[in-house]
Amino acid sequence: MATWKWLKGGLSAPKGFLASGVKAGVKYENKYDVALIYSEQPAQAAGVFTRNRVKAHPLLLTRQQLSNGVAQAVVMNSGNANSCVGEAGDRAALAMVRQTAQELGVPPEDVLVASTGVIGVEMPMERIAGGIHAAAQEILMMSSAGAHEESAHRAALAIMTTDTLVKEFACELPCADGVIRVAGIAKGSGMIHPNMGTLLGFVTTDADIPAEELRRLLSESVEDSFNMVTVDGDTSTNDMVVALANGASGIRPDGEVWPEFAAMFKALCVKLAQEIARDGEGASKFLSVHVHGAKSKEDARKIAKSVCGSSLVKTAFFGEDANWGRILCAAGYAGADFDPDQTDIFLGSVQVAASGQGLAFSEEEAAKILAHKEISVFLRLHEGDAVATAWGCDLTHEYVTINGSYRT
Amino acid sequence: MATWKWLKGGLSAPKGFLASGVKAGVKYENKYDVALIYSEQPAQAAGVFTRNRVKAHPLLLTRQQLSNGVAQAVVMNSGNANSCVGEAGDRAALAMVRQTAQELGVPPEDVLVASTGVIGVEMPMERIAGGIHAAAQEILMMSSAGAHEESAHRAALAIMTTDTLVKEFACELPCADGVIRVAGIAKGSGMIHPNMGTLLGFVTTDADIPAEELRRLLSESVEDSFNMVTVDGDTSTNDMVVALANGASGIRPDGEVWPEFAAMFKALCVKLAQEIARDGEGASKFLSVHVHGAKSKEDARKIAKSVCGSSLVKTAFFGEDANWGRILCAAGYAGADFDPDQTDIFLGSVQVAASGQGLAFSEEEAAKILAHKEISVFLRLHEGDAVATAWGCDLTHEYVTINGSYRT
Repeated sequence: MATWKWLKGGLSAPKGFLASGVKAGVKYENKYDVALIYSEQPAQAAGVFTRNRVKAHPLLLTRQQLSNGVAQAVVMNSGNANSCVGEAGDRAALAMVRQTAQELGVPPEDVLVASTGVIGVEMPMERIAGGIHAAAQEILMMSSAGAHEESAHRAALAIMTTDTLVKEFACELPCADGVIRVAGIAKGSGMIHPNMGTLLGFVTTDADIPAEELRRLLSESVEDSFNMVTVDGDTSTNDMVVALANGASGIRPDGEVWPEFAAMFKALCVKLAQEIARDGEGASKFLSVHVHGAKSKEDARKIAKSVCGSSLVKTAFFGEDANWGRILCAAGYAGADFDPDQTDIFLGSVQVAASGQGLAFSEEEAAKILAHKEISVFLRLHEGDAVATAWGCDLTHEYVTINGSYRT
Repeated sequence: MATWKWLKGGLSAPKGFLASGVKAGVKYENKYDVALIYSEQPAQAAGVFTRNRVKAHPLLLTRQQLSNGVAQAVVMNSGNANSCVGEAGDRAALAMVRQTAQELGVPPEDVLVASTGVIGVEMPMERIAGGIHAAAQEILMMSSAGAHEESAHRAALAIMTTDTLVKEFACELPCADGVIRVAGIAKGSGMIHPNMGTLLGFVTTDADIPAEELRRLLSESVEDSFNMVTVDGDTSTNDMVVALANGASGIRPDGEVWPEFAAMFKALCVKLAQEIARDGEGASKFLSVHVHGAKSKEDARKIAKSVCGSSLVKTAFFGEDANWGRILCAAGYAGADFDPDQTDIFLGSVQVAASGQGLAFSEEEAAKILAHKEISVFLRLHEGDAVATAWGCDLTHEYVTINGSYRT
């Protein structure tokens, strides 16, 4: 069987999906800020949500809308999180859903809604309404046969906040009866942490999958991708990843196709998650922390995330300082079960510690590795065979500047 | 009964304690880096230690030395943490203890040892030995009758690393039969977090208290003081707070004296902890986060620490931005049980949110409060009557600069 491959394109790469993004003036700059995703037929749908006790109004509505496992459209905006504004927030989220349903001619219960941006400020509903109308018009004018990459690309732009990179990927798996495609977009750059940061992710696929199976696949994929990204340790009120499977390919990825399809789906999530880490607010370096030989997957994850999220490790990498003591120290307070006196640490290919003790490594070699934009850290625990990888970025002056003046 | 009051002076304020600090060249600069505390008679002793799984060599030895609840001297150094260096580290810690015992003429099992500084580098034992000798000589030459504030002050200087403020306090409680004194020094500025950051604290008292009671008092006091400080969320391998009670006042603080004595002891710990937060690496503002009306003490603590430790809250205060949404958001992921829709938030005297929603507060009033060097945040939960306070600082460019180049 053929293996899957990356494709050019975004959310509309899978059959039967269209997406659009417009400038509605929610952000004060002249930027894309309202977007729609539309499936020509009702899709099986699943979501994963923030574990923050404070949950944004659109998130609560979307979770409720997903209870029947079906959705046909998603309305999204950036510039305002629609969070912590009381009943006005519930009304705003519902109004967005109702208008989208009406404009696209789909049942209101099949529309999902997501917002990102500043917390605690009421939504500018007039602008939002104008945006939804324009975005829906754009979708209604498209022929379903054409390629709509540019329009879908604007949807990816419209969910960005302090992001500097568009996060948009697509891939396909050739099968005996045709091809299955999966595509996704994501946003997130500050407030990113395990258990979902300020992170929105939307995945479309034309595979034919029941909602329950999609939900399991999405959860597993999120555990090893979005939940392994840490930028600043803050978990937001708005985070969600939603997947829609409309079956338009006519192919059900079961039997021997399933492992390959699941691998592709997860790879797409990992790619989006890595891009979020790479685009961490103010980041100058992309960090991957690989933990090998842990007693359990949970231990491996805890250690990888703890090292990747440590302010001291992050500033050391910013300063290109081979300070492995901070790495071991961050592993030590991860709450995982391991023996520090057995731990080996590598910066890229240079082993800097063996059995918990520093080695007389070449500072010159280490400096070369630390000068790269992408740095890998390996911890070998010798406790078992569980592995995990977390992604993050360094902590820079730029992070402080961005977050010292976000609201104003 | 008279109430307790603050005193000028340091570790030698309580009767029968002497302390000294010298420049031994462990730090490359011309700075104090080796210190001793000495009690003229064996003291009851207790300690609280880091919960990091990686534990520094001196910490392991001190914990063992404290098993009999008696100590008479403490040897301390900065510039090198004596952590993660294998058996050489155990040997170095033991050598420091043995030399101190010999120089001061006390049993080796009654000497404690603590180190702070860079992790993973072997101790420069020749310099350390010279330092211990000089510090012991200084103590041996003192008459026990005199006031030895200056010498004790040098001990406070010798445990500083990136600290910019000396943390040294003393207080006394007049009793019917005389006076009980308590004094303490601490260090800590980066890598500070709940469950003990890179934090050393030493408390002396001339009260007559059995070790077991001292241990309980110290633990309770640490919970509400050192453990409520957060600078950057990293918990170090070396943290410890040690208390010595030598009984030289001849007064046993029991009966009605106990509550007043315990309050004084805790106030001293709180004062030291606050100074650590105030002196957080690169800090430009001191933050106090007060949580009222929580269901349990544990919930109140979790929320206070989560808000105080959030990178987004810390950068917002650096930027003097009244971004209360980040405060509620950080409370939301604290893992505590509360209803965000009931939560009121105040910045100083200005209420910025009521029942989880933003108020149309005066930005001008808020700006005035945020311009201060000391900022208080209040969260009122309306869930119960538990309270807690956490202390921290803002996250600044200076923090990034300091920690980007600590090792070099």
